[in-house]
Amino acid sequence: MALHVVLFQPEIPANTGNIARTCAGTDTHLHLIRPLGFSTEDRMLKRAGCDYWPNVQIHYYDSLEEWMNSYPEAEFFFVETVGSSSYAVHDYSDPAKDYFFVFGRETTGLPEYVTEKYQEKCIRIPQNDKVRSLNLSNTAAILVYEALRQQAFPQLQ
Amino acid sequence: MALHVVLFQPEIPANTGNIARTCAGTDTHLHLIRPLGFSTEDRMLKRAGCDYWPNVQIHYYDSLEEWMNSYPEAEFFFVETVGSSSYAVHDYSDPAKDYFFVFGRETTGLPEYVTEKYQEKCIRIPQNDKVRSLNLSNTAAILVYEALRQQAFPQLQ
Repeated sequence: MALHVVLFQPEIPANTGNIARTCAGTDTHLHLIRPLGFSTEDRMLKRAGCDYWPNVQIHYYDSLEEWMNSYPEAEFFFVETVGSSSYAVHDYSDPAKDYFFVFGRETTGLPEYVTEKYQEKCIRIPQNDKVRSLNLSNTAAILVYEALRQQAFPQLQ
Repeated sequence: MALHVVLFQPEIPANTGNIARTCAGTDTHLHLIRPLGFSTEDRMLKRAGCDYWPNVQIHYYDSLEEWMNSYPEAEFFFVETVGSSSYAVHDYSDPAKDYFFVFGRETTGLPEYVTEKYQEKCIRIPQNDKVRSLNLSNTAAILVYEALRQQAFPQLQ
């Protein structure tokens, strides 16, 4: 099984590019929920620095529901500044399981109906109030590497 | 005491901007070793998206030696793809200590004389060989949050 990053309607290509790079380097699957704020044509991705795109297993969806319906058994977490618990208290340690980390749009996060419906699945990255949030690609890297750390970095050097 | 991110001659303003945002959100000090690949004039930083610059304690140096001489008692780690041990096996858990994480240039990393002299201080982030390295701001976020996790996120919500 594997780790999965799900981006809901990402807006900034450099963020998705950095996340694709982290996914490529860790065999993490990347799931993108449209509409995207950028073109995924080769030429445009190259211009945005998304050099690792071909090395990543990328899956596309037209809605959050389409993604959720594709993985009815998945263990998933919504990563939001309003999350009810710290990401660090959860268990992602079973390499035989699929773990999905879902991130909202850079500007507006995840839809409110999602964070309300799945309150207990909403996790946050602890921070002070000097910033509204961390950069999206940084939050994804923190989550992916916490899961990998708990799994003792399977197949990574 | 505190956590510290040291950037040796960073080249890409968006990376330093994202790192400054992580530092602002976690009360981590940022140390920049010149020359920088960008201007730190307000107007230029704003254009590069470095919005959180005023919220960070930033220290400037003209050489790696100047930084090292400023903190003779510091516990420091050089983060490099050639690092001899994984970042995750080290102890950063004492909130009463200063921990410095030093990152090299985006293109060429840290000077070879440094990684040779301080081999046992060189740590790496485990990854496969599909990417040369992770994005610089992502590596900094991973290290800062591993240290914070070990310290149980003091003063963060």
